[in-house]
Amino acid sequence: MTDPRLTPLAASLPPTVPFTGPEALERRMGRPFAARMGANENAFGPSPKAIEAMERTARDVWMYGDPEVYDLRVAMAAHHGCDPSHVVVGEGIDGLLGLLVRLTVGPGTPVVTSLGGYPTFNFHVAGFGGRLLTVPYHGDASDPVALMHLAEESSARLVYLSNPDNPMGGFHGPEVIGRMVEAVPDGALLVLDEAYAELAPEGLLPSIDPADPRVIRMRTFSKAHGLAGLRVGYAIGPAPLVAAFDRVRNHFGLGRIAQAGALAALADRDWPREVAGRVAQARDGIAAIARAAGLVPLPSAANFVTIDCGADGAFARRVLGGLLGRGVFVRMPGVAPLDRCIRVTVGPPEALRAFAEALPLALAEARSAP
Amino acid sequence: MTDPRLTPLAASLPPTVPFTGPEALERRMGRPFAARMGANENAFGPSPKAIEAMERTARDVWMYGDPEVYDLRVAMAAHHGCDPSHVVVGEGIDGLLGLLVRLTVGPGTPVVTSLGGYPTFNFHVAGFGGRLLTVPYHGDASDPVALMHLAEESSARLVYLSNPDNPMGGFHGPEVIGRMVEAVPDGALLVLDEAYAELAPEGLLPSIDPADPRVIRMRTFSKAHGLAGLRVGYAIGPAPLVAAFDRVRNHFGLGRIAQAGALAALADRDWPREVAGRVAQARDGIAAIARAAGLVPLPSAANFVTIDCGADGAFARRVLGGLLGRGVFVRMPGVAPLDRCIRVTVGPPEALRAFAEALPLALAEARSAP
Repeated sequence: MTDPRLTPLAASLPPTVPFTGPEALERRMGRPFAARMGANENAFGPSPKAIEAMERTARDVWMYGDPEVYDLRVAMAAHHGCDPSHVVVGEGIDGLLGLLVRLTVGPGTPVVTSLGGYPTFNFHVAGFGGRLLTVPYHGDASDPVALMHLAEESSARLVYLSNPDNPMGGFHGPEVIGRMVEAVPDGALLVLDEAYAELAPEGLLPSIDPADPRVIRMRTFSKAHGLAGLRVGYAIGPAPLVAAFDRVRNHFGLGRIAQAGALAALADRDWPREVAGRVAQARDGIAAIARAAGLVPLPSAANFVTIDCGADGAFARRVLGGLLGRGVFVRMPGVAPLDRCIRVTVGPPEALRAFAEALPLALAEARSAP
Repeated sequence: MTDPRLTPLAASLPPTVPFTGPEALERRMGRPFAARMGANENAFGPSPKAIEAMERTARDVWMYGDPEVYDLRVAMAAHHGCDPSHVVVGEGIDGLLGLLVRLTVGPGTPVVTSLGGYPTFNFHVAGFGGRLLTVPYHGDASDPVALMHLAEESSARLVYLSNPDNPMGGFHGPEVIGRMVEAVPDGALLVLDEAYAELAPEGLLPSIDPADPRVIRMRTFSKAHGLAGLRVGYAIGPAPLVAAFDRVRNHFGLGRIAQAGALAALADRDWPREVAGRVAQARDGIAAIARAAGLVPLPSAANFVTIDCGADGAFARRVLGGLLGRGVFVRMPGVAPLDRCIRVTVGPPEALRAFAEALPLALAEARSAP
């Protein structure tokens, strides 16, 4: 039953959600996962300095967080060598994507993304009535040239690209992204989701002028900084666009512990580097486990390895089911032909061991299915 | 300069924000406030059990929070004696009000509230293009009968009422609210903001069937529970409306520390009662300070006392300025004739002492102004 007071747009939206959380799966199974390798969380955890800051702030949480998020914004701006007027902080990249879509997309507005790209972006576009147009992956990589062609052809308002790419793990170097920026059509905006930036090969991030009106970049504390459950993301972009977020955002939305934790995490320059090293090592470990099982791991610049299971989506879903049943939480791309793969988040050695044990059994089970 | 890619609605919104935070005022003054009595925060703080739960969860914050907020929703439902399908949790009442307006209000949709009522609700209505219609306060109280008359007359979709009332502090008993519910016109929804419910006189809260399609009630952990900076609110309402929030909400928006802290706070039945006692005592203290200065404190069922400064808005603004200048952060209603008042949040004895010292000086200054 739908509430009769919903707007026509709200009434038209499907009751589906982008992701089922691991906790929901655990409740269905009646037991916790042995290894949590599905949500691209960072099991190496946050900086000890961030933990200490959050613990210290717990008793101050009777106060609202600063609605201007001033200290954190200033620190982010310094980190990126720009003026704070180019930085907006929000409740994760998810929250910022929602606000950006709200600001720029109305009923029927064309928006371009990759077929099989980040579902939460699509959720927001649908939620504001936008018309989502998609470009297939080229091989296992997103296709910047085709995305911009479609944007031009369709007069798209937004073009979304995640780089490093989720869910496939690939990476476009600065020249490719630079050409993409040059190709942004008049009236369009490139939404560059760099959630995994700190885990990408060093020196390969594009250098983009924060004042460039053609691009907004999204960053997060959820990945390299290990603060997914704190909900802090930020965007860097042209000042007039950044200022517009103030017209619609939930001004007191970023809590006091969130601001303190993120500020301490940003100040600790060593931790993300330390994490990047552990992530790279664990990526190699997962790739080796995949190969040992006769599967093909795709190259990854993020904190997960996408593994080609060598058959179709139905087969990969059986493998995924076998892993879940053995207490290993992983996810998979939702759309063919990417859905021949499973996506495995890196983790500490015990998680990799659980995966190494479960994978051959899940594969054998998937192969023997009727 | 406005970004040319904004939707017509976004481009039409004013760049104003509902509230300036105390931190922004402190930055302008160049020094911190001695007493933070402006944002209706709870300086008595959160339950020690909630603090402990937040501290304990800091190191687990690499995991996203459960997107279904299952444990907390179940606990809230048990607390209110209803099924979890009647409960939606969000990033404070502010966040939930934004989602509710998004779900039900489109361009031109009439919405009714009190003139001088909660500015953030108005911010959301404007943000989705709704047409805000207002009813003046009757004396110093909101006017349920007139609100429902206007709702009927205007075919309003939403009718907002805060009870206990912010910014005036008054309270309508269960009979008045019951009659208001009976008067909700077809196609309308009463949004009952009960942020201060736990601080209201005991036994005077209305008893409303959670399945009643005419009402949604909003509650928060920001006030009696002392967790304003954690950003957790919830709404209780008819299941089809509650379910609709899933179509638009930021599913991973409620963080892990937020869920753990709120769950522990809810489990501690003693703390809100303890706080309510201290709040009542501090209300008496503030009222006495006001009377000693020759002013009239209004009766309050919340964690603040609204004080009639006895003249017009310009005078009250001068008093407010004098208090701010003396390091005492307070706020005031924004609209005449309510703006003859200042609104002073309760706090511990040292805050009341700072207020008691500053008030006579601020008054003398305001009276001697040219």
